[in-house]
Amino acid sequence: MAAEIVNPRSAGGPDGGAQGELTDPAFVLHQGGKMAVQATVPVRDRDDLSLAYTPGVAKVCSAIAEQPELVHDYTWKSKVVAVVTDGSAVLGLGDIGPEASLPVMEGKAILFKQFGGVDAVPIALDCREVDEIVETVARLAPSFGGINLEDISAPRCFEVERKLQERVDIPVFHDDQHGTAVVTLAALRNAARLTGRTLGELRAVISGAGAAGVAIARILVEAGIGDVAVCDRKGIVSRDREDLTEVKRELAGFTNSAGLSGPLETALDGADVFIGVSGGTVAEAAVAKMAKNALIFAMANPNPEIHPDVAHKYAAVVATGRSDFPNQINNVLAFPGIFAGALQVRASRVTEGMKLAAAEALAAVVADELSAECVIPSPFDERVAPAVTAAVAAAARAEGVARR
Amino acid sequence: MAAEIVNPRSAGGPDGGAQGELTDPAFVLHQGGKMAVQATVPVRDRDDLSLAYTPGVAKVCSAIAEQPELVHDYTWKSKVVAVVTDGSAVLGLGDIGPEASLPVMEGKAILFKQFGGVDAVPIALDCREVDEIVETVARLAPSFGGINLEDISAPRCFEVERKLQERVDIPVFHDDQHGTAVVTLAALRNAARLTGRTLGELRAVISGAGAAGVAIARILVEAGIGDVAVCDRKGIVSRDREDLTEVKRELAGFTNSAGLSGPLETALDGADVFIGVSGGTVAEAAVAKMAKNALIFAMANPNPEIHPDVAHKYAAVVATGRSDFPNQINNVLAFPGIFAGALQVRASRVTEGMKLAAAEALAAVVADELSAECVIPSPFDERVAPAVTAAVAAAARAEGVARR
Repeated sequence: MAAEIVNPRSAGGPDGGAQGELTDPAFVLHQGGKMAVQATVPVRDRDDLSLAYTPGVAKVCSAIAEQPELVHDYTWKSKVVAVVTDGSAVLGLGDIGPEASLPVMEGKAILFKQFGGVDAVPIALDCREVDEIVETVARLAPSFGGINLEDISAPRCFEVERKLQERVDIPVFHDDQHGTAVVTLAALRNAARLTGRTLGELRAVISGAGAAGVAIARILVEAGIGDVAVCDRKGIVSRDREDLTEVKRELAGFTNSAGLSGPLETALDGADVFIGVSGGTVAEAAVAKMAKNALIFAMANPNPEIHPDVAHKYAAVVATGRSDFPNQINNVLAFPGIFAGALQVRASRVTEGMKLAAAEALAAVVADELSAECVIPSPFDERVAPAVTAAVAAAARAEGVARR
Repeated sequence: MAAEIVNPRSAGGPDGGAQGELTDPAFVLHQGGKMAVQATVPVRDRDDLSLAYTPGVAKVCSAIAEQPELVHDYTWKSKVVAVVTDGSAVLGLGDIGPEASLPVMEGKAILFKQFGGVDAVPIALDCREVDEIVETVARLAPSFGGINLEDISAPRCFEVERKLQERVDIPVFHDDQHGTAVVTLAALRNAARLTGRTLGELRAVISGAGAAGVAIARILVEAGIGDVAVCDRKGIVSRDREDLTEVKRELAGFTNSAGLSGPLETALDGADVFIGVSGGTVAEAAVAKMAKNALIFAMANPNPEIHPDVAHKYAAVVATGRSDFPNQINNVLAFPGIFAGALQVRASRVTEGMKLAAAEALAAVVADELSAECVIPSPFDERVAPAVTAAVAAAARAEGVARR
């Protein structure tokens, strides 16, 4: 997610080596891991055992064998999500492999619990081929109510998500894409409202055509943005480029209706919105050419593409991925509630309508508190998860993917 | 495990249908499942998040990427076991598939926690081929400190365990085999002691050549039993039979040194020990021909192969798989401590020596309380898991498979 783009050079830091581990608070906190399993039923004596285990458990098993949907009632399946990665695109650290990704997956798991009441289990996979990942996770699916894909590198992440969702009847959600997109859309809705504009009046530029950039472009178009151009390292993704991957060709098909081509600076000229999910930097001269009342979301961590001090010279609203500036675009505002809502109604997938509903509900939490320093709620605002959960559950029913 | 052999006809029972679900205590207890995940570190505010998640987590990931063994220190890997099944041999219910097996796997998971302090996650797989199961679990292995195989049908379970252990560097332990074998050996050691004999003086007969029967035969031979003959539905497994599977051919190679052939009754004639893991029944006339001071372990559930009332007519010690008779052979006496010990020293596998040490430690818990009604401790005896854990950890070090 945007909030997780960390500069690898600063990640280790002076305390990153074996020397500093003993005293660094992050290492101290991580000792022994960050999570545990607990029984929610008593196992104190023979009577307890005879209900929770043999022989009592046998009739529950038999009932599920006869009526498979009972698995949702009598196991934790509908409460638990697998947080699945292959360790190929972890934070800004890149391809560090499955074991080294586990602290992030555990962190994600406890955020699921803390913010959405959703149980989650880290599953870091020792395989890399799209079909291997899909096949492996499909085989695990009976044990889980949903699959949160995490930190899988683009463009494989797109194919993994699509193929896996075709295989299983539980929601598959790549948070780096859709979590970021939902929170970005929510913040943008409020920023537009604050500045008296509709999404349809805005022209946006996205810097970064990876998992987050592609998903943000897609949700903005679905939400009715005036126009959006996506830029990768070679400039604006446009139909006339011949170096595009399949995903970017598709992207060119539904973005950049103005038909711009050239560098990021060209796209920014007169643009209303900048959304940075690239980790690069944007020259102030280019920022200066944006339209009046610009909305700048510079989400790279720890170094925003446009520093807030610079952004504020030209923008009406500035958001980042950092917790030490106002308006933090943080996925934790979305994924716990999205899964909680999907699990609540036993949704078979997370549709576009459910994501849009999540963004609207998240934006609506701000309500009267709306200001340039508050276009998105704090991750610790306790109204967030219930609002997103309810909206997603309702949307799942409306879209016909709910099973209760 | 032996304690889990349930008669499928009685499993549903009068309350097994939808009618009875609402009031049956087993269904009431299972509502919503039996387990949950919890955070073991605080996630109350931004400072907490910045340590448990980004940006703090990044340096922990980087440290593991540089020194892979740190994954054991800074994640829950070394605390957590995957309870893996394909749902093909669940209790006595047989092949009920992955979803319907989940209540048993959840039950197992909470027993791990309750009795061994080991976190465990149910993983019910939607695949059946040996190589599929092996490949899938090998890909998951980075996330776990151990793999408990459960309720996978014979003879596939033998091959799954062997091939998987060759692939991964964490312990793979098929509890239906080795858990049952360890507890049986412990009880037999004490029964022999009680009746003034050594294992070497005993001739044993095992009824059942499935997962449990094969593993019990193996551990008895390793422990120095005088002789052991294993019987399947066609009679004594002997070298002259031409209908044997690969596993049973191997079995014939190291059991039945007397060269017996024929039905179970032939083997029982003059035998000192009967071990039932078959679910069949044995005629009283055959039991009557056993040696004086016989030891009868009739472990099928709910119907022991030889009813204790009959067994007591001929035997000095009677054990069953049932909790309502003395001397319950219950795997929960073994697997929590075996995994706790293996995880404590980060063992790469569970060796034969570790299983023998577990059995000895378990037998030793009884000590002065030894009697015909107490050859094995109660599952709720709090001395059991610490004793097994310590013995297994020490044995792992002695056998050179410990990594700390």
